[in-house]
Amino acid sequence: MEKIKQLQQDFADFMAGIDFGGEPKELYAPIAYTLLQSGKRLRPMLCLLANDLFGGDENEALWPALALETLHNFTLIHDDIMDKAPLRRGKETVYQKWNSNIAILSGDAMLTMALQFALKPKKGATIAALLGKVAREVCEGQQLDLNYETQTNVSIDEYLEMIRLKTAVLLASSLQMGALVANAKESDIQHVYDFGITMGMSFQLQDDILDLYSDVETFGKRHGGDIADNKKTYLYLKALELASEKDRKRLQQLFTLHMDHDEEEKIEEVKAIYDRLNVKEEVEKVIAEYDRKAFLALDAIDLPDERKVHLRTFAEMLSGRKK
Amino acid sequence: MEKIKQLQQDFADFMAGIDFGGEPKELYAPIAYTLLQSGKRLRPMLCLLANDLFGGDENEALWPALALETLHNFTLIHDDIMDKAPLRRGKETVYQKWNSNIAILSGDAMLTMALQFALKPKKGATIAALLGKVAREVCEGQQLDLNYETQTNVSIDEYLEMIRLKTAVLLASSLQMGALVANAKESDIQHVYDFGITMGMSFQLQDDILDLYSDVETFGKRHGGDIADNKKTYLYLKALELASEKDRKRLQQLFTLHMDHDEEEKIEEVKAIYDRLNVKEEVEKVIAEYDRKAFLALDAIDLPDERKVHLRTFAEMLSGRKK
Repeated sequence: MEKIKQLQQDFADFMAGIDFGGEPKELYAPIAYTLLQSGKRLRPMLCLLANDLFGGDENEALWPALALETLHNFTLIHDDIMDKAPLRRGKETVYQKWNSNIAILSGDAMLTMALQFALKPKKGATIAALLGKVAREVCEGQQLDLNYETQTNVSIDEYLEMIRLKTAVLLASSLQMGALVANAKESDIQHVYDFGITMGMSFQLQDDILDLYSDVETFGKRHGGDIADNKKTYLYLKALELASEKDRKRLQQLFTLHMDHDEEEKIEEVKAIYDRLNVKEEVEKVIAEYDRKAFLALDAIDLPDERKVHLRTFAEMLSGRKK
Repeated sequence: MEKIKQLQQDFADFMAGIDFGGEPKELYAPIAYTLLQSGKRLRPMLCLLANDLFGGDENEALWPALALETLHNFTLIHDDIMDKAPLRRGKETVYQKWNSNIAILSGDAMLTMALQFALKPKKGATIAALLGKVAREVCEGQQLDLNYETQTNVSIDEYLEMIRLKTAVLLASSLQMGALVANAKESDIQHVYDFGITMGMSFQLQDDILDLYSDVETFGKRHGGDIADNKKTYLYLKALELASEKDRKRLQQLFTLHMDHDEEEKIEEVKAIYDRLNVKEEVEKVIAEYDRKAFLALDAIDLPDERKVHLRTFAEMLSGRKK
């Protein structure tokens, strides 16, 4: 835990030394507002932990760590426009606080800044190429997510591919970049990437559960937002699979309703069906399986177990096994 | 002219060999739709001409040329959302043909693709860094442009700085990148950049004139769109400067009206004031001065005049001296 806290502090200190200001202020104020909120810094931490795992120079890894955090926050700003999300981390979203034009443009500037940060380390060109690849994948995932809002016949496999692109690849790339600047060998970079993918799948499925089964104070977002937005999460797709003919029809009908309908009522009715079918427990089983695979990938890395302690601890914190 | 036509053909052939497709198709179709329209290919041409000027390898310059064209088209897609523009090059804009979410996301993917293309040549890291710098500047320029739509006291200097950022820097960077991959010396890279800035200023001021004084068939955009959008162009700012108290007040009043007002009537009334004050001729004087400075910068490049023929011819075509 000491190592994790130290890396968190190092990243916070590093960010404190970066000037996110600039002119015109309408463009840069939303960037500072977004990046300087105290988020989980999950992606930077994965990058720094992977770099530490392979004995790399932390100064080289801080730049990709910042690039990843900036890229992630860019996606949030643009996604919040598309999802019409009023809250993020318990605060107003950029599009809500300013307007959607400013949110588009400051997001564009952030994507560009992410690239600029990625180019800073010695292996800048390679890191920037990876950043480009993962940024494309995240866009593809977000487009699939938008498609599935209106597409009626989404399969569980399609959903899993969507969250792989939208969430897991960025977590995996964070680990990959940290390992890469540390000059890890090819096979180990692949293992750490695989660890990130499976952990990312687990993380997103947990997020789906938290969206409905946690309260807004701890989660920082609108409660049941996925249901309100007709997002076909694993919960919903599993419920469809397990439901009686009557429940299935009702669920499908509820997931065509839009904001003119009473939102709270809709969320409560969907949640009641989920609870009756025990879909939360079903999703938890799938999460456990991803977690198991993640730790197998971690085991496969060609290093002594004691070196893997910090990354393992961090992943266990994320998967909620340890607080 | 042969050289210019040859480079145009080379770029067209190069683009024809690039696969702009991908999944999900909702993300990639707008990219192919935008990039495969027959635009002027101004930025790629400037990059290839500068590379040719300094005797560089055309294969190295084609990638930054494509990166620049992709970056430019990304800005058009996002700007068209912000400006609510229905037409671009005489065709429906992406946000109009699909929707604004798809336009945001496919624009994001294009910005990322621009980065990926920029990384391809031998000097990829340097080109990508320049692309990042210019992308930031273009965002800043667009934000100033948005600000000036509602800001009442815009000065002519502020306007010129806005168009420098929004338009001129990208043209200048196109020349700079072409010169850079051709290993031109520092002082010549600076001259060719300065040439691009002054030519770009001239180009944008001409565009302001064309927006009002050409017809939609040849221009491909809504006629008088700048007036409809209350864009404070050089024409407007010069008119304010030259106008009688009465005309000035009327102009300012007209430039607070929004779409609920009869658009055609507003455009005609503003145009009548401009014509009475001869502002078109005033802007043409400023354009001539920028053109003069542009050709001075071209003269300063440390190469025999005969090498500069193609770039000079291309610039003269742009400035409308030669057809």
